[in-house]
Amino acid sequence: MMPTGGGEARAQALAELKVLRHETLISQQMEDLLNGAETEFNKLSPWQRANLREARRIVQLSKSVTKGLVEASSLACSRSEQAWRFLRGENNWADFLPLLENVVQLSREEAQQRASHTGLLPYDSLLDLYSPGIDSNFVSRIFNEVKLFLPHLIQEISAHQKNHLTLEQPGPVSTEKQKNLGLVIMNILGFDFNHGRLDVSHHPFCGGVPEDVRITTRYNPTNFIESLMGVIHETGHACYEQGLPKEWHRQPVAKARGMQVHESQSLFFEIFIGRSRSFLKFLQPFLLQYLATQEESAEASSKNSFWNLENLFGAFNKVNPSYIRVNADEVTYPAHIILRFEIERDLIGGKMEVRDLPEVWNEKMQTYLGLSTKGNFKDGCMQDVHWPSGAFGYFPSYSLGALTASQLYASMARTIPDIEAHVQQGQLQSIHQWLRGLIWSQASFLSYEELLVHATGESLNPDHFRKHLISKFLNDSHK
Amino acid sequence: MMPTGGGEARAQALAELKVLRHETLISQQMEDLLNGAETEFNKLSPWQRANLREARRIVQLSKSVTKGLVEASSLACSRSEQAWRFLRGENNWADFLPLLENVVQLSREEAQQRASHTGLLPYDSLLDLYSPGIDSNFVSRIFNEVKLFLPHLIQEISAHQKNHLTLEQPGPVSTEKQKNLGLVIMNILGFDFNHGRLDVSHHPFCGGVPEDVRITTRYNPTNFIESLMGVIHETGHACYEQGLPKEWHRQPVAKARGMQVHESQSLFFEIFIGRSRSFLKFLQPFLLQYLATQEESAEASSKNSFWNLENLFGAFNKVNPSYIRVNADEVTYPAHIILRFEIERDLIGGKMEVRDLPEVWNEKMQTYLGLSTKGNFKDGCMQDVHWPSGAFGYFPSYSLGALTASQLYASMARTIPDIEAHVQQGQLQSIHQWLRGLIWSQASFLSYEELLVHATGESLNPDHFRKHLISKFLNDSHK
Repeated sequence: MMPTGGGEARAQALAELKVLRHETLISQQMEDLLNGAETEFNKLSPWQRANLREARRIVQLSKSVTKGLVEASSLACSRSEQAWRFLRGENNWADFLPLLENVVQLSREEAQQRASHTGLLPYDSLLDLYSPGIDSNFVSRIFNEVKLFLPHLIQEISAHQKNHLTLEQPGPVSTEKQKNLGLVIMNILGFDFNHGRLDVSHHPFCGGVPEDVRITTRYNPTNFIESLMGVIHETGHACYEQGLPKEWHRQPVAKARGMQVHESQSLFFEIFIGRSRSFLKFLQPFLLQYLATQEESAEASSKNSFWNLENLFGAFNKVNPSYIRVNADEVTYPAHIILRFEIERDLIGGKMEVRDLPEVWNEKMQTYLGLSTKGNFKDGCMQDVHWPSGAFGYFPSYSLGALTASQLYASMARTIPDIEAHVQQGQLQSIHQWLRGLIWSQASFLSYEELLVHATGESLNPDHFRKHLISKFLNDSHK
Repeated sequence: MMPTGGGEARAQALAELKVLRHETLISQQMEDLLNGAETEFNKLSPWQRANLREARRIVQLSKSVTKGLVEASSLACSRSEQAWRFLRGENNWADFLPLLENVVQLSREEAQQRASHTGLLPYDSLLDLYSPGIDSNFVSRIFNEVKLFLPHLIQEISAHQKNHLTLEQPGPVSTEKQKNLGLVIMNILGFDFNHGRLDVSHHPFCGGVPEDVRITTRYNPTNFIESLMGVIHETGHACYEQGLPKEWHRQPVAKARGMQVHESQSLFFEIFIGRSRSFLKFLQPFLLQYLATQEESAEASSKNSFWNLENLFGAFNKVNPSYIRVNADEVTYPAHIILRFEIERDLIGGKMEVRDLPEVWNEKMQTYLGLSTKGNFKDGCMQDVHWPSGAFGYFPSYSLGALTASQLYASMARTIPDIEAHVQQGQLQSIHQWLRGLIWSQASFLSYEELLVHATGESLNPDHFRKHLISKFLNDSHK
């Protein structure tokens, strides 16, 4: 929403706030407070102890970087991100390169400073910022397991879908209609409108504080599925935030348990509710009521109608290797992430230079998805906001989130055997209750590993994801 | 935009930021920096000296209140304002009374603390927060002059307008159309869209920073004049902010010279441009193009058309004693302000208690505007956000601004004799240049008094306002 000319002032303001936060966290007063609390450790409740542990972690994270670096990074990242917004549109790699080099340089420095405090590898110390409890060894191991089955599955599912032609959305649908549908679906998904809003932005996001969660989407008249899926995905993030324990709000322990868990909630909502056959059965009448013309509605059950259930399932679940991560389907998505993980690990580790990025990107796209991005920076290595804004170590959380969501769903389905019937009736209370009890209300009380084992009985296991893909895309017994 | 449930967290966050700001300003480090600058006073440029003076003023203002009071006030005001939003709708004075009493109690305490540092009267120390360089003696003197001519003028103009029936807007106009018109008019008025935006809110405002000025309006389908005038008024504020000297941005001297000057700019745009006969001639084709139907456009010159120029002038300039300040015309507006000034001066001075507010309000409304607000709190003493949010001392700036705007226009008209022709052609560069040179670019370099004398050759003189009203509303020679 910000006009371009406001960028520099915003960058200055953000840097100022980050420095203030930094100074507060590394102050002697903070140290004394934490030490004071630790002398009373025996008197503390388990949640108070977890809160102290998380507070200590935040302070340690602040102490591991210098104030000068915090300020320099914040300014460089704001400026690079703002420039990226128009340079990407121009496919202008040449002008973007020095800005990104500066950001990578500062991120390497940050990784080094952090690593020398934490004893982690430099890249792992950034990974840890977004997904506490995760290191690159773990990520490599998990992603290598995924690489064993994914390329084959992508081919198999693509081949399978070639037999099912999907009809295109018949006509443009106004923003107003899409918005009204989105609001109704948010309500059904359990979004609390007393503590949040839906707005519009260039790219969907979820932000704010648990008491006031703002989600956004964007409206494309010729593709309502994009905005609706944006809404459903962000509502998953929002329900997690709104479900964090109120009695601990604004305390460290009440924060979400890392971005990999956050993405598991948004992807749970998107994939296991939003794109599921059961939910689409429930959704169909809403789509007809809110989006379709009267004529289209009357003929919705016809084989030639876009709105017939089988076609909707196809339209919501097209699998197709493509350039853009945010538009990728759930099957090819991990390939986009694995590529980014391997690149950013090497960039931060100093095994690769920014100038080589387009070439490496192109090679890996060829290998993983059979697509060339030669000369196409816009839809290649310049497509995402993460690196221009200095967020190295963030990408793995998306696919760890997808794997986690699959595992949660498998576990949930054991506890709630008629879960598909609930979804088909739009009765999501049982899902809410399960997630609220085992994930949302737990916030950062447990570690990611403990949380997962407690909720599902095992550590992260990519096989649930594999089984889900096979059952959804290759097993046609549902039809 | 904020959902109700987010209120408490927002209140806490604002209080936290205010305390941080307070602590920074009263720190020894700040004192040392100011003292250091003062030892080099002889080497400073005039603007650097003014900047130091303004910095010293801000620090002194912070030192004159305790941190405990800053926090208590911020929380009480946020909560009272949030409660007011729905209590006003319910006309619920009983539940609002204790909240307002608390706010008044804290404001009295603040006024006392400030007064004991500044040597000003308690109420004057609050007035000084919004309109530096103004005290209640000055305001009383000016307002007494206005009271000498205003009641008579209101009667005379009302009587005069009885002969001119004004036609109502023929049909509803969509938000979309009104917004598009607003954006075009902002552009013509010189709003810089690289450094600002237009959005929607419950009540029009102008906020943000000079590099990113956000203005809002609200859309009423049956009264487009309201949204358009909101846009024009706020564009006046915005141009002042956008015209502040860039080389001093974010320094104390680069702040606007008080709310009375700010309001003089918004009212200059609203009254001397927006509602003027010259501008309406320019505006008419835009109104037809953006808002009227084809039929209405074809008949726009007819005597029975809402869109004929004479009727538009009447519709934009109806004079009518009414309950609500923000809807008041430029003639009766000062009566609303004088009433509020007299009440808040006595409330803060301890000469009046909050429980007596409805009765005193009713009496003064009877005296100044001939209207009773007995039992009607919603449209009486509960109508404005200022007192519920603790902004005592703010109201006078509106009418001081109107008087200042009249004086600026009179002076400008001497320098630019064909100013009406410029306005009629939508050529506002000369006005921009005049205001930019004498007001906007001056920021807080001069005092209010110096600024005014420099721009107009005299101190504030309400006679310009009187002459303007007579010439506009009683002298029909223009027709």
